[in-house]
Amino acid sequence: MNNMIGHFISGQHITQTQNSGPVFNPSTGEEIARCAYADVAVVDQAVQAATSTNAKKWAKASHATRLQVLFKLRELMIAKTDELAEIIGREHGKTIADAKGEIGRAIEGIEFACNAPQVTKGEYARNVAGDIDVFSVRVPVGVVGCITPFNFPIMIPAVMMAMAVSVGNSIVWKPSEKVPSAALFFADLWKEAGLPDDVFNIVQGDKVAVDAILEHPDIAAVSFVGSTHIGEYVYQKGTSHNKRVASFTGGKNHMVVMPDADLEAAANAFVSAGFGSASQRCMAVSLLVPVGEETANQLRTLIIEKTKALKIGAYNDPTADFGAVISAQSQQSVLKAIDQCVADGAELLLDGRAYEHPQYKNGYYIGPTLFDYISTDMDFYKQEVFGPARGILRVNTLDEAILVTNSHEFGNGSVIFTRDGKTAHRFFMEIESGMIGVNVPVPLPVSYFNFGGLRRSKFGESHLYGPDAARFYTKLKTVSQKWPEPEESDQAISLAFKIT
Amino acid sequence: MNNMIGHFISGQHITQTQNSGPVFNPSTGEEIARCAYADVAVVDQAVQAATSTNAKKWAKASHATRLQVLFKLRELMIAKTDELAEIIGREHGKTIADAKGEIGRAIEGIEFACNAPQVTKGEYARNVAGDIDVFSVRVPVGVVGCITPFNFPIMIPAVMMAMAVSVGNSIVWKPSEKVPSAALFFADLWKEAGLPDDVFNIVQGDKVAVDAILEHPDIAAVSFVGSTHIGEYVYQKGTSHNKRVASFTGGKNHMVVMPDADLEAAANAFVSAGFGSASQRCMAVSLLVPVGEETANQLRTLIIEKTKALKIGAYNDPTADFGAVISAQSQQSVLKAIDQCVADGAELLLDGRAYEHPQYKNGYYIGPTLFDYISTDMDFYKQEVFGPARGILRVNTLDEAILVTNSHEFGNGSVIFTRDGKTAHRFFMEIESGMIGVNVPVPLPVSYFNFGGLRRSKFGESHLYGPDAARFYTKLKTVSQKWPEPEESDQAISLAFKIT
Amino acid sequence: MNNMIGHFISGQHITQTQNSGPVFNPSTGEEIARCAYADVAVVDQAVQAATSTNAKKWAKASHATRLQVLFKLRELMIAKTDELAEIIGREHGKTIADAKGEIGRAIEGIEFACNAPQVTKGEYARNVAGDIDVFSVRVPVGVVGCITPFNFPIMIPAVMMAMAVSVGNSIVWKPSEKVPSAALFFADLWKEAGLPDDVFNIVQGDKVAVDAILEHPDIAAVSFVGSTHIGEYVYQKGTSHNKRVASFTGGKNHMVVMPDADLEAAANAFVSAGFGSASQRCMAVSLLVPVGEETANQLRTLIIEKTKALKIGAYNDPTADFGAVISAQSQQSVLKAIDQCVADGAELLLDGRAYEHPQYKNGYYIGPTLFDYISTDMDFYKQEVFGPARGILRVNTLDEAILVTNSHEFGNGSVIFTRDGKTAHRFFMEIESGMIGVNVPVPLPVSYFNFGGLRRSKFGESHLYGPDAARFYTKLKTVSQKWPEPEESDQAISLAFKIT
Amino acid sequence: MNNMIGHFISGQHITQTQNSGPVFNPSTGEEIARCAYADVAVVDQAVQAATSTNAKKWAKASHATRLQVLFKLRELMIAKTDELAEIIGREHGKTIADAKGEIGRAIEGIEFACNAPQVTKGEYARNVAGDIDVFSVRVPVGVVGCITPFNFPIMIPAVMMAMAVSVGNSIVWKPSEKVPSAALFFADLWKEAGLPDDVFNIVQGDKVAVDAILEHPDIAAVSFVGSTHIGEYVYQKGTSHNKRVASFTGGKNHMVVMPDADLEAAANAFVSAGFGSASQRCMAVSLLVPVGEETANQLRTLIIEKTKALKIGAYNDPTADFGAVISAQSQQSVLKAIDQCVADGAELLLDGRAYEHPQYKNGYYIGPTLFDYISTDMDFYKQEVFGPARGILRVNTLDEAILVTNSHEFGNGSVIFTRDGKTAHRFFMEIESGMIGVNVPVPLPVSYFNFGGLRRSKFGESHLYGPDAARFYTKLKTVSQKWPEPEESDQAISLAFKIT
Repeated sequence: MNNMIGHFISGQHITQTQNSGPVFNPSTGEEIARCAYADVAVVDQAVQAATSTNAKKWAKASHATRLQVLFKLRELMIAKTDELAEIIGREHGKTIADAKGEIGRAIEGIEFACNAPQVTKGEYARNVAGDIDVFSVRVPVGVVGCITPFNFPIMIPAVMMAMAVSVGNSIVWKPSEKVPSAALFFADLWKEAGLPDDVFNIVQGDKVAVDAILEHPDIAAVSFVGSTHIGEYVYQKGTSHNKRVASFTGGKNHMVVMPDADLEAAANAFVSAGFGSASQRCMAVSLLVPVGEETANQLRTLIIEKTKALKIGAYNDPTADFGAVISAQSQQSVLKAIDQCVADGAELLLDGRAYEHPQYKNGYYIGPTLFDYISTDMDFYKQEVFGPARGILRVNTLDEAILVTNSHEFGNGSVIFTRDGKTAHRFFMEIESGMIGVNVPVPLPVSYFNFGGLRRSKFGESHLYGPDAARFYTKLKTVSQKWPEPEESDQAISLAFKIT
Repeated sequence: MNNMIGHFISGQHITQTQNSGPVFNPSTGEEIARCAYADVAVVDQAVQAATSTNAKKWAKASHATRLQVLFKLRELMIAKTDELAEIIGREHGKTIADAKGEIGRAIEGIEFACNAPQVTKGEYARNVAGDIDVFSVRVPVGVVGCITPFNFPIMIPAVMMAMAVSVGNSIVWKPSEKVPSAALFFADLWKEAGLPDDVFNIVQGDKVAVDAILEHPDIAAVSFVGSTHIGEYVYQKGTSHNKRVASFTGGKNHMVVMPDADLEAAANAFVSAGFGSASQRCMAVSLLVPVGEETANQLRTLIIEKTKALKIGAYNDPTADFGAVISAQSQQSVLKAIDQCVADGAELLLDGRAYEHPQYKNGYYIGPTLFDYISTDMDFYKQEVFGPARGILRVNTLDEAILVTNSHEFGNGSVIFTRDGKTAHRFFMEIESGMIGVNVPVPLPVSYFNFGGLRRSKFGESHLYGPDAARFYTKLKTVSQKWPEPEESDQAISLAFKIT
Repeated sequence: MNNMIGHFISGQHITQTQNSGPVFNPSTGEEIARCAYADVAVVDQAVQAATSTNAKKWAKASHATRLQVLFKLRELMIAKTDELAEIIGREHGKTIADAKGEIGRAIEGIEFACNAPQVTKGEYARNVAGDIDVFSVRVPVGVVGCITPFNFPIMIPAVMMAMAVSVGNSIVWKPSEKVPSAALFFADLWKEAGLPDDVFNIVQGDKVAVDAILEHPDIAAVSFVGSTHIGEYVYQKGTSHNKRVASFTGGKNHMVVMPDADLEAAANAFVSAGFGSASQRCMAVSLLVPVGEETANQLRTLIIEKTKALKIGAYNDPTADFGAVISAQSQQSVLKAIDQCVADGAELLLDGRAYEHPQYKNGYYIGPTLFDYISTDMDFYKQEVFGPARGILRVNTLDEAILVTNSHEFGNGSVIFTRDGKTAHRFFMEIESGMIGVNVPVPLPVSYFNFGGLRRSKFGESHLYGPDAARFYTKLKTVSQKWPEPEESDQAISLAFKIT
Repeated sequence: MNNMIGHFISGQHITQTQNSGPVFNPSTGEEIARCAYADVAVVDQAVQAATSTNAKKWAKASHATRLQVLFKLRELMIAKTDELAEIIGREHGKTIADAKGEIGRAIEGIEFACNAPQVTKGEYARNVAGDIDVFSVRVPVGVVGCITPFNFPIMIPAVMMAMAVSVGNSIVWKPSEKVPSAALFFADLWKEAGLPDDVFNIVQGDKVAVDAILEHPDIAAVSFVGSTHIGEYVYQKGTSHNKRVASFTGGKNHMVVMPDADLEAAANAFVSAGFGSASQRCMAVSLLVPVGEETANQLRTLIIEKTKALKIGAYNDPTADFGAVISAQSQQSVLKAIDQCVADGAELLLDGRAYEHPQYKNGYYIGPTLFDYISTDMDFYKQEVFGPARGILRVNTLDEAILVTNSHEFGNGSVIFTRDGKTAHRFFMEIESGMIGVNVPVPLPVSYFNFGGLRRSKFGESHLYGPDAARFYTKLKTVSQKWPEPEESDQAISLAFKIT
């Protein structure tokens, strides 16, 4: 096969490679390309680019210069949305509408990166003591290593790198090897937007490339989004090489519904946020947690009906609600989780295991699957199921709902549906999640607020999106400055410590 | 000896211990007490206190409640400065004047912690899209482990913990086992200031206690100040247990002097900042880097004369400029470094090796020692010499001065003396240090700016002091909230990703 | 009478005066002192002090120097609370408990002024374009004229002036001539706290002094709190002399109660916030606005009973709930408003007009008075009644409650009692008031948020309290700085406008 | 003449008018159109549009919705730069290159307005006391009246209105009647960018329209840029109608040159910043203030030579350095100022009074004119000369330079050329100007910093550009919120004031 998806280093596409792996179209199950896999040497080549004179010029470039590239990038993203959505859909399996939604959020992230001059401002204080002024500046950290997941081929990378680049860093990015093409498309947009070569580099690959990034002494910071297992590894390995690391990982997002909620709306929200993108989102609603039997019974009826109506299809089927999962392996894993859940005694309300697409029998499809009576000791409850199988976990009280939500390993997004002010307030004060929704099923914040979970949904102290991201990608210099008068030359010696 | 310096847990002093070590008065060389050394069980006991109901109440206490404790603590620190200075001087060896200076900076840190309600404010945006409001709150991380060095028995702990406590955390603190008494004195002040028991806990000890802190699953964050070797270990071990860690380590602070500088003032600054506290400060000036031979020669003459005039003495000798170093071991280590530097060919201008205190022959004294012609390949240049031996490293140009400063392993504080605006600007833009002084020899920022070095002078992304410290000690929750209208109940299903 | 309450200028008490007026004890109706009234010359003398070398030194003093005065002031306020409460109560008539509450809020304002170094920080950006750095500093405006009302003799002045002084300004303050003694007491505290003479000056007096302040060319900013009529005059006159003016005026605070609210709690809140300090607070609840007849009827029963139980008394009667109003004139004015309201057809539920204190028959007492069926065309509704007469205005829906609240001339504080999240959200989004309470009857924000009404409750764009106050009291300098390289001397001529 | 330049109200161009005035091409002196002049009724019509349902929808629109319009506006401005530059040049007389420079800065202002969601964020604090949360939101003020000068037909309006619109306000704008066409062009761009009709309205006219804006009860805020005389009137009249007003007025910008400066660069800077746009900029350098005779003499020689080389021409002459002044009246006024300056005894170095354009004899040209020995008692010194006549004011010391600069009525932009750090620092600390340049001749800050002078160069407390502009265009609501527990219903009555 001559279709080799390669790296992007120093402004050049590089397709020669020693190692490579297959890339599939999940909607059909066909292998559609090969993806080059970087070894240590390729990663080093990318880092060398990212530390070149060109890259250093970008680090020192004026805000005015950098900003023009960001604004231009945004325009290009808008202009090429259709083309990019097709690329994403083909390798990922999500519907075109869903891909466009993702691109919209990517653009929103780029828009916030246009705030970089504002959000990276240092501070200035005159005469703090003894005629000394103190001020601070934020400067780029240098080279940022980015490692991104398959489920958002463009949104996560765009949000991450728009800010990292906007504040002056250069990039070595390893995309998911399952969706490598959107990355290259994005690289071309940066170049067209006027970003100097060497600032933005892509190494395709697998764990070899990840390790090479984590170990490289010239990479100062690592941003990761992906599964908890790998994210924890990335945090520990990256920091063991003294890097700063921000690692955003898995979720098992509980949606608590109170008896006073609008149940119809809650049911719609659950189905949309639960099955969208074949449930392959870290912000997907995983579990419905109705409070009280009456609430549970009503919601159960509603969501069975609504879920039954969902249409599955290929990414480019405009009538489809969601598509295939990412891979045959993933499909097997989800099916196994369903089997186990049945074995563990949950009640299977809807069974999507036997689903077969009329046209694409090899596509990685699973029909929408629903359980009731999930309990916290089941594997299905404990693990992040990355496919269209969702469940109901019944509780009797808000206290119990909060307790169960806080007891899960993950603390990414938690949501509540209620009309009551106190209930909502208690929920957001007591829930140990980084992102909380009140009558909002997917509490992914807008780009000018910060993204990040708590507990094992995030490793490291920083956030994606928002002002915190600008902090993560910069380091601070604080200057204490005093200009001497001519007559001060006989300033006396004093060895005691004193206020500045 | 019945004088056992113990732990402080749940508001109680605990002196029973299995293990302990000696505490010396460096000014006399006498053992003056024993210090209890915590084992894993003691650390666990402290963490249990720090996660008790009492501690959780503090985490949820109102800003108003917390603030009163901080203001009161400040008053007590001022009222008890003399008493505390004596305690510090006796175990550390620094002069009373120097100890009072340190306490002054500690108080300044507490004053900034009184800004906690302001600097921990979250953000609020109305109708970001679709009638959703987004807002955020900063909540305490939980238990903070603090590990502090001998050289500032109260300043570093106060700055660190005033903010950590002010934002609602509880503390498990391991002070340096060489200066354990100031810690207990500080704990009593907190208690007197009204801090509830269980919030502030001290475990005395050595590496056993450090490891227990780094490994304890209920400690969320670790703040460390100390040597680079240990600080790197703390960063790597703490993060390998998924904690957030801020580790502030060594310095080798270069003081560049340009020909246009006020040389008399520069010489005074060098002697003060170089030998103060027997050079045992991470912000001490380590090296004089004069630019040009003429500058070097003039400064050499000036600093020889000024250094010769320095008076050494016991901590409570009011005529002393500086005192003993912390321990016999440290004394030997500094003497060895001087010997090696002589052997490596530097010119020894002043030799303090033979110094003997007339009264306290067993005190850990070293006379002020000066070298010229230090070069970058000497061990004396490479290591952080924690004793009163300083050197001159001659360079010919500003370019060379910047290059040599940036080539050192450490990037803590770097300073320049000049009258020229462009020179100062180039210095702070090009120097890779976290704290930079322009005609200020010790660029330790005031408490409302951030403290922290670059390169191997800091591990982790956060800072001590300033608004960044408040961020390190808190975690963020971001809420997306929408209140439903009655008529919205038939909101349609849509699985595509969209702008919030 | 030899008890002349005088001015305070350049650190001196000045009791010689041409003009003066009586000061009464409202609890007894006795004249207890005379108060000097400043003429133009006295005001000018105060302004000259405030522009003296001493005052200018304060403007340039370091943050460290200024901060120590603020912290000390806070300590003194706490230590002297009892003494000050007595002074306030005697001239104002409010109970000692209420006066202490006021002092507590004054202290809170001083505490926030200890944030001045943080909240007045300028900004710094490197290389905005063409190697130019831009930074900004906030400097004091110079002399601030303060004009304060009788109803909070210490809280409003302390909040206002703690920040104004903390950022470096000097003060010319005209307190209410009805409560002149607390001002002098406060001046003594400032002096004891270490504030240099000339920075803080008091001119006692009436409109003559007000006009002299508003017209004086050396006063840069005027802060006013008081009635709308005068506040509008102050805004217009002050700005006609090109000053910046922040004028905080009257309120007619509506308390909307929804059927879902905790009616018992709401009734308690209404009685407390309605009659506290004999209703002489701009943040007092003026009107109860129950939504629905059932809510109205239940609340009516509750508040009649609770209001009946209120005890009136002299300021130093520890069993009193509230005391006399400020003056005989005010007493007459409130009585007339009640008469008019009866004449206009409202239902008089409780009639306090005939109240006579058993001991102090000349005290300015009015018993608690309650109306039902207030309508928006009544004078009683339109005007701010500064005495213990409150009313119920019945509405049928939340829409109507919002409409009526927004239709009033004033937009100071508006509150709602409800349990419903959407209702609360609609209320704060749609209500045109500067301060909004949700289940909080007196929505006076804490000192680190901003205070200020909308519509005719505030003239000018700034706020009291919070970060905005620091902005009002400072002016901004923005610096664009570039340091030339030697080789740049032949920079070409170009007359076209360009990006910096 | 049928070419009537009209108003723009509710998305419609309106050319019917009762009153009108001529519009000239300054480069040729020809009348090229008529401009409609609004009367009170037309202004009221515009205000009605700006308070319509459409406008109110914009005020409540989501940030996401508004932001898209701003980004699109920026794109259109870039795409149509050539067309707009032609329109500006024809009516104003500035060169096309200069007009494009202006448009570039206009775009920069729009770019900062894309930060609106970030810079208008409110704040949130949990549990300030008694389980009360406090938060704040910034909402649009409503209708903003804008009054802009002839000298920047697009830059000032764009900066002003991009932010005002971005935060949700609607606009009633009166452009200068001398350059009315750029305004209409801008209105069309807003419409094309998607701004709803009614939000952006233009009333052409003279003082009648200005007064109607200042007096209209439904206009909440007024932004003005123009001459000091009118700006003071606008401030006083606007505030007398209780509006918030920000009025940016004249400058007489001193350029101090120290003996250590790069004199060649300083001379170039003076000529560029002094004569650009025929000196019709409030940020133009008006006076050269050399320190010391030697500095003065060298600079004099350099600037005579450089000024002589300047080429005058029509706006569309690509070889011209600058063009005509705005009007025949302005031309006469500048010529008279030169005559008077000669009569007052200044030395006339270059005399541009007799300049005649070879082709356009009726164009309003004045040749570059230079004086030496300007003194502070001359009218030429005191007034803002809005035409190409500049002067040298000699001083002996930096002290004298600072004194003279601070003694001028205006405090807009002041600059110093020096290499010395202390000199620059003293200058920016001691100079009473809002914008300060260090080796930067036109210290107009970038759009993310604030613009505004001190003393009589600005009336009001706010700024153009930067975060302060977002504050001026919004008002603040602060919410104190508490959600009741069921069991709190028996909360006791307490009338004493207390901490929230």
